Amino acid sequence: MKAKVHITLKNGVLDPQGKAIHHALEVLGFTGIGDVRQGKYIELDLAESDPAKAKAAAEEMCRKLLANTVIENYSVEVVA
Amino acid sequence: MKAKVHITLKNGVLDPQGKAIHHALEVLGFTGIGDVRQGKYIELDLAESDPAKAKAAAEEMCRKLLANTVIENYSVEVVA
Repeated sequence: MKAKVHITLKNGVLDPQGKAIHHALEVLGFTGIGDVRQGKYIELDLAESDPAKAKAAAEEMCRKLLANTVIENYSVEVVA
Repeated sequence: MKAKVHITLKNGVLDPQGKAIHHALEVLGFTGIGDVRQGKYIELDLAESDPAKAKAAAEEMCRKLLANTVIENYSVEVVA
């Protein structure tokens, strides 16, 4: 199974990367841009074939390594 | 509208971040992990209210700034 993991900063946490992107887009002439937030996207190929177990494993990986749960949220989507 | 942008490395491009995550997960005792690929995830709040125009604008931003199209693919999903 393939697990698609999104890791995003929690609301209220300052996002300097997003701010930098926002500024750069405005310098390039793009208008009408509100908030910009940057997160991480990780694709994991897992040998586990049971979707529920694969999702549980990927969430465990998020808690133990991939996400800093003090400032980040994670979401896991499992696809065949 | 909100644009959700995924930027991923093209197939065949070496992904040292993904390799580092793979190694760290194995050190932590996770098994059955195949390939790991890391990409970027960017959320843009756009003032544009037409979905087609918002998507076109976000794709233009990808080509001009967000993605290095030599080695990266981008995909844009627009949600209300």
